[in-house]
Amino acid sequence: MTHTPNSKDACIILGVDPGTRISGYGVICIENQDYTTLDYGCIRPPVGLKLSERYLVIFDSIEELIEKYRPHVLVVETQYMYKNAQSALKLGMARGAVMIAAKKRGLSIFEYAPTVAKRAVVGYGRASKFQVQGMVQRLLKLPSMPEPEDAADALALAICHAHSAPHLQASNEV
Amino acid sequence: MTHTPNSKDACIILGVDPGTRISGYGVICIENQDYTTLDYGCIRPPVGLKLSERYLVIFDSIEELIEKYRPHVLVVETQYMYKNAQSALKLGMARGAVMIAAKKRGLSIFEYAPTVAKRAVVGYGRASKFQVQGMVQRLLKLPSMPEPEDAADALALAICHAHSAPHLQASNEV
Repeated sequence: MTHTPNSKDACIILGVDPGTRISGYGVICIENQDYTTLDYGCIRPPVGLKLSERYLVIFDSIEELIEKYRPHVLVVETQYMYKNAQSALKLGMARGAVMIAAKKRGLSIFEYAPTVAKRAVVGYGRASKFQVQGMVQRLLKLPSMPEPEDAADALALAICHAHSAPHLQASNEV
Repeated sequence: MTHTPNSKDACIILGVDPGTRISGYGVICIENQDYTTLDYGCIRPPVGLKLSERYLVIFDSIEELIEKYRPHVLVVETQYMYKNAQSALKLGMARGAVMIAAKKRGLSIFEYAPTVAKRAVVGYGRASKFQVQGMVQRLLKLPSMPEPEDAADALALAICHAHSAPHLQASNEV
């Protein structure tokens, strides 16, 4: 879907929830406090690829999304919960792939804690995945709940950024 | 320095020791069991840059090195020791920047544990940084000890890969 915003005040936001196996993404346009959902889904590097090849798939996919929708900003989740350091390292590589693809195109990058994104969308920070999916559907007037959860999380991050006051946005730039 | 290998059997190896503040690199050419050192040094993203901008500096610098020396392979350290998960995440992003730059150009990527690299260069796995620098200088016939330590570590990784038998190389591809 291509989308041409009508006003100069429109902001196209790309939210991404990176992961080695599955990375959710969501692209929304904010214009006069109206949301338009441009796209959402997930990147699943084919099983059997080498780890380094998986990161390249993520990098290339994010580049393609940026080329297609020309977002102004990238929004990612603040990461501070991990199973262990090894999984943090792998997540870091996936996250690096997303951030470098965005930074190469000159996008500003913002991050919000998962609890902040949930509060922005559902109203409280300990909402379930299901509640997030339901509220994202309502806010964006989608015909069905966004699937998979990772895509709903990415859309929630984009909404969270759109809801934030400029001074809050600035303090979350990375 | 540009370098044109004489034979088809020559292999140009780029070793990188990635880090958010400082990433060491070393480029060597192996031809008929002779080493030629093409370059070594480190990437230090300017202080004051945003974290995402630092990763882009690392990515761009590795791309430039690949463009200049046309290495066949990238060699990095196996990471499994961290202060904490947060530092592992940051290291992962720096490592992702290096690996994606290499994979975009079609390089094969290999990793070796620090103890394996030290054993290949010094003879035992618990060698000091100083010992690694000294042996790298001797093996590569450098006029002085390679500085900083990060650059010596990167050269040691490249030498380690060159020393490894093909079946060991294959089992370390990532």
